[in-house]
Order: sequence, then C-alpha cells, then structure tokens
Amino acid sequence: MQTAVSSNSSVSPAVGFEALRDFIARALGSQGLPSADAAKVGELMAQADLQGSDGHGVIRLPQYIKRIRAGGINLNPDIRVVSERAACAIVDGDNGMGHLVVSRAVDLAIAKAREAGVAWVSTRYSNHAGPASLYARKPLEHDMIGLYFAVGNANHLPPWGGMDMLLSTNPIAAGFPAGDEAPVVLDMATTVAAYGKVKAKAKKGEMMPEGWMIDRQGKPLLDPKRADEGFLLPIGGHKGYGLALMVGLLAGTLGGAAMGRDVVDFNADHQSVTNTGQSILVIDLSAFGDPAVFKASVDALIQQIRDSERLPGVERIWLPGEQSHDRRERYARAGIPIAAGLFAELRELADSLGITPLVAGSGV
Amino acid sequence: MQTAVSSNSSVSPAVGFEALRDFIARALGSQGLPSADAAKVGELMAQADLQGSDGHGVIRLPQYIKRIRAGGINLNPDIRVVSERAACAIVDGDNGMGHLVVSRAVDLAIAKAREAGVAWVSTRYSNHAGPASLYARKPLEHDMIGLYFAVGNANHLPPWGGMDMLLSTNPIAAGFPAGDEAPVVLDMATTVAAYGKVKAKAKKGEMMPEGWMIDRQGKPLLDPKRADEGFLLPIGGHKGYGLALMVGLLAGTLGGAAMGRDVVDFNADHQSVTNTGQSILVIDLSAFGDPAVFKASVDALIQQIRDSERLPGVERIWLPGEQSHDRRERYARAGIPIAAGLFAELRELADSLGITPLVAGSGV
Repeated sequence: MQTAVSSNSSVSPAVGFEALRDFIARALGSQGLPSADAAKVGELMAQADLQGSDGHGVIRLPQYIKRIRAGGINLNPDIRVVSERAACAIVDGDNGMGHLVVSRAVDLAIAKAREAGVAWVSTRYSNHAGPASLYARKPLEHDMIGLYFAVGNANHLPPWGGMDMLLSTNPIAAGFPAGDEAPVVLDMATTVAAYGKVKAKAKKGEMMPEGWMIDRQGKPLLDPKRADEGFLLPIGGHKGYGLALMVGLLAGTLGGAAMGRDVVDFNADHQSVTNTGQSILVIDLSAFGDPAVFKASVDALIQQIRDSERLPGVERIWLPGEQSHDRRERYARAGIPIAAGLFAELRELADSLGITPLVAGSGV
Repeated sequence: MQTAVSSNSSVSPAVGFEALRDFIARALGSQGLPSADAAKVGELMAQADLQGSDGHGVIRLPQYIKRIRAGGINLNPDIRVVSERAACAIVDGDNGMGHLVVSRAVDLAIAKAREAGVAWVSTRYSNHAGPASLYARKPLEHDMIGLYFAVGNANHLPPWGGMDMLLSTNPIAAGFPAGDEAPVVLDMATTVAAYGKVKAKAKKGEMMPEGWMIDRQGKPLLDPKRADEGFLLPIGGHKGYGLALMVGLLAGTLGGAAMGRDVVDFNADHQSVTNTGQSILVIDLSAFGDPAVFKASVDALIQQIRDSERLPGVERIWLPGEQSHDRRERYARAGIPIAAGLFAELRELADSLGITPLVAGSGV
C-alpha cells in the first residue's frame, strides 16, 4: 500500500488526474460496482474536479459510497430505452449510478441527432450525476450543441412568495462549439447560489452576501449555519422560480421522473430510490449548415465580447466556461488541488474500504 | 367611417378582440400587406393584447407601419425552408413580417415533432414577432411542449463586467400542457427588466428600482429618462449574461441570423434588413408516454405549488402564465383596455392611413 504525502499539511495537496480517476474507480469497485462502470464513473468524477467543479467531483465519493452501502444504488442496473422515436427517447436508469445513466442518454442523443438533426433524451430512475456541464460538453467533440437540464437532488427553493421547498436548484447547462476559441459552456443553478456554496461558506465560517437566502419572515438570511431556517432565492425573483419550474418539468415530469414533493433529499436519505431525471438536447450543427461557419461566428462573437469596453475596475470579461477551460489545462499540467480536509477524509475512506489511498503529486 | 368613442377620456377605453384584430389587419392591409397575411398578423398582435402583453401588441403597430413605409419589410416574401432533416429545419423569412415567419416555423416544428417526437426550427431573415409566449403556447393545443428563444431587436445588455451593449434582452418562453389547470407558460427576458418597462417608467415619470440598470461607472441608474446613459442588468448577474448569450446563439447564430454587433436597433433604424432569428423547440408528449399522465402530473404540481405555505404578506402564489390566462378570459368578456394615449395615437394613425379607426366597446 502506498503512503499519501502532504495529507498532514494544511496546504491543498495536488493529485494527478489519472491518480484521482483510478482512486475513485477503486473505491467504487470495492463496493461491487463492475470495473468498467467504476472506471467510467471515476473518469467523469475526476473530470469534474479537473475543471474545478469541485462541489461535484471526488467530494461526493463518501456520500455515493454511503448510498451504495445503504442499498440505495442498483450496482447491476438494466439501463434501457423504454420509449423511442427518431428524435427522442426515455432512458430508464433502473436506479444505477447517475453518471452511467446520463452517459447512456447523451450517447443516444448524439447518435439520434446525427440522423434527425436534433434529438432529446430524458432519463428516469437515474441518480445524481455530477456537474451539468460534463454532459452539455460531450456533444462538442461531434460538432454538436448540447443543452442539459436536471432536477436537483434536494429541494431548497420555494415557489416565489412561498416557504414550501417544492423546487430544487435545477441547473441548466449548454455547450457551443467554437473554432480557435474555447467552446462556450454555460452551467448554472437557477438559484442565486447553489446549496453547495452555502455549505462552503459555513465551513469557512463566513457570512453569506444578501440575496442568497431569506428566512421565514422573508428577511435576508446571512448566517450559513442557520441555512436550515431559510430558503435559497431564485435568480431574478419570479423569473428564476419560473426557470427552476421549467427545468423541473423538462428534466423530471416529461420523462416520468420525480418533481415537486416526490424529490428525495439525497443528503438525508441514502436508501430511497430517488427517481432522478435529467434531459439532454443535442443539435447537430451540420443539419443547419457548415459547422465551420457556425464555429467562426462563435469565435467572432467571443472576440467581440472579450475585446469590448469594460466597467471601471474590471480587468477582464470572461465567456461562460472560459475559466473552467483554463483550469482544466492548468490542473492537467500541475495536478488537481484537493482541499486538505477532503484529502484526509478520502484517506480515512480508503482505510475503511481497505483500498490503496489517493496519492498526492501532479501525476505528470 | 365609424367614430371612436371615449378617445377623449383619460380612462382606458376597452376594445373587443375582433375589433382590434380587424383594425390591425386594416392598417397593415392599407400598406400593401396581402389580406390573408394582414389578418394573420392582426390575429397574433391582438392575442398579445388579449393576454396583457401590451408592450408587444397593437402598441407596435405605428412602428411596424413606419418600417413598412421605409421599405424595411418585404410585403411579399418567399418564406421558405432552406435546410431540413427529420427533426429540424431553417426557415428563411425573406425579411417578411416576423409573425408570419415564426408562425411558419412553429407549424413546421409541430408537424415534424408529430413524426420524430421532437423538432427544432430556426428562423433567419425574420423580424420582430411579438411576445415569445404566443409561439411557445401554440404547440399546447396539440398536447405538445413549446420552447421558444428569440434575439431581441435592439442591444441593451453588455456582457457581465462590460459597457458595450452586444446583447439584447433575449427572451425564453416555454409552454407546458396541463389537464384541468391552465397551462404553465413562462415568458421572460433574461434581463431584470425588459426595455419596454424602462420606457413605461419614463412615461409615468417614475423612478426605477435599484437593480434594473447601471450607469457607466457601474452605479445604480434610477432615472429612466437617463436610460441611454446606462445599461440593463441581467438576472442573477453573470448567470443572466450567460443565459442571454445562450439564447442568442440558439436563436441567432445557429440559424444564420444576426447576433452581437450585427443586431440592428429596430427602434432607430426602420430600413435595414434586421435578419432577426428565433428558434422553436416542440416536444410531442405522446412520444414520451400517455399525454394524460403528463398533464395530470402537471395539475398535481400546480396544486402543490398553489396550496403551499406562503411568506407573511403574500396573498397568493402564482404559476407562470396564470395571470395572463386569467387576463385573457377577463378581456375576452369585458374587452381589452387600451391606454388613452395609445388609443388617440391609433386614431391619428387611422386618419393618416385613411382607414376606419378602432372603435371602443367590449365587442361582445
């Protein structure tokens, strides 16, 4: 068994992408997930960390393991298409790992879009699958646009004017191919702050800015330790409420997955079938003209935006996804930073599972 | 020639739907728009007023007439499909009235979705087509979901951190069939306030709330009369910027329509071809299961939301589209209120065109 270095330091240890991917695969494999599936989930979770979506990467591993041990995940699911037409399908995930279910859905949507020009695939009986942008990005390599909608795995958002948390942070992600520039990749919760950001503030002992949450009197809630006394706020008030509802209807209700009161809080309940729903829309650029023309237009637009006049004090105008893109290249070279506390937690996890722990080092 | 009543009163005169529709058709017909096309545009514009989208209904008529007279609209366009696959198409509007171009796109998307399950149709060389919800609602009667994206016809939004207005209020609309309940219909600009709301505040001599606009120092801009010294703000800060960009890429760039610097300000320029783009996505519920099951789920969700606990002081929780739905039924019975100033302007327009003016009265 190798020994992890720097886990006793307070500096974030950096780990190589392959080391992280393989560690996740080992951990999941030790719980009985078939090795090809474990490798696939490991790859996607490590990709989340590689692009800096660190609330959705290896940080989720202990929770996934807990769910698997509680019997809340089907390790040998029959992931299958239950209804289908030329440009759409529903994939039933049979309560398998969400990453596997959504990957299947995205692959199917890409294949269908290649024929029909556009395709929509919804999942049911899926599970948490990591950051939305992972899946909206996948069609890019085929010169296709990806649009992704997901029902969040815990309700933290009431309807506008309400206190009953019937909605989640239901994210929207979109990926657009570019030419010489990095692709435009949007990935956003429909709430001002994702719940993970609230938890991060609490961990750091910091207060939240006004506008993230309100309490049961409708007053600003600033102390993240009191988060369970209040609710997240949607972006743009009633507009974000409308968006969260729209995403939930598209990603949940349409495919027969959970929405509203049926959503299972996967932080509190590790056992119940979540019946999580996601939807992916794939648009094949070649059905709309020459993909090179589209990509050149995106490049031109990116340059217009990047070179446009800035407000006083603003150093740079970013495109959606540009910072993740830069991070991906940087972390691939120098290793992925893992918070010291998480690194220690993963070492304990390795001990408890009896697997080789994660080893720090850039992996290059 | 009939005489309009109550135009000399400051109370808003009410007009019947048919009277409004026919007046618009007369006005457009007088400028050479073929009568079937004039009737169709009249119908859609009057429907906008009927649902209370009064910034996009008959209020636009003087501007449309001005554009037609300046040669900025092709009155006899060859609206045609220029590329096509099973689940997608591009409709080239040949610079015709936007209502006609988008109607054609929506009809085509509905027909394609009936076969393929899902269909996406983009327009190019279209024009301003009224409220987004008109088109997202159209698939509802076929038990289909509609999602609509449009590039706004004037840039009022800079990228986040910038001052260069490269983006518009690019709206998103979505319509979901329900069973016994009214359908869920979202229609929202990706900015906190649509530009029409700023103009309305200026007209009333009111200040804007903080958060609608900022000036070139990044400070809140509250006086709507100084609107041209500042910019609209996107919902949720950088998130709304990302959404506006996403909508622009989907509705403009994808179909070969204008985006970014190429967008023509149709308030200032009545002559240049706008090359406006819109996109409609239609999802046939029957491709995903029994539409009755979907609609029953939407009903149940609506009831959960409506009956949920309210914040202190909140009288009712609304669903997106519910207020428009109520208004549509009320105005159909009692007539559509037209602001006195607009009513007088329409009377002058009728005089100048030599057509029978709009007559007040519920029309019932």
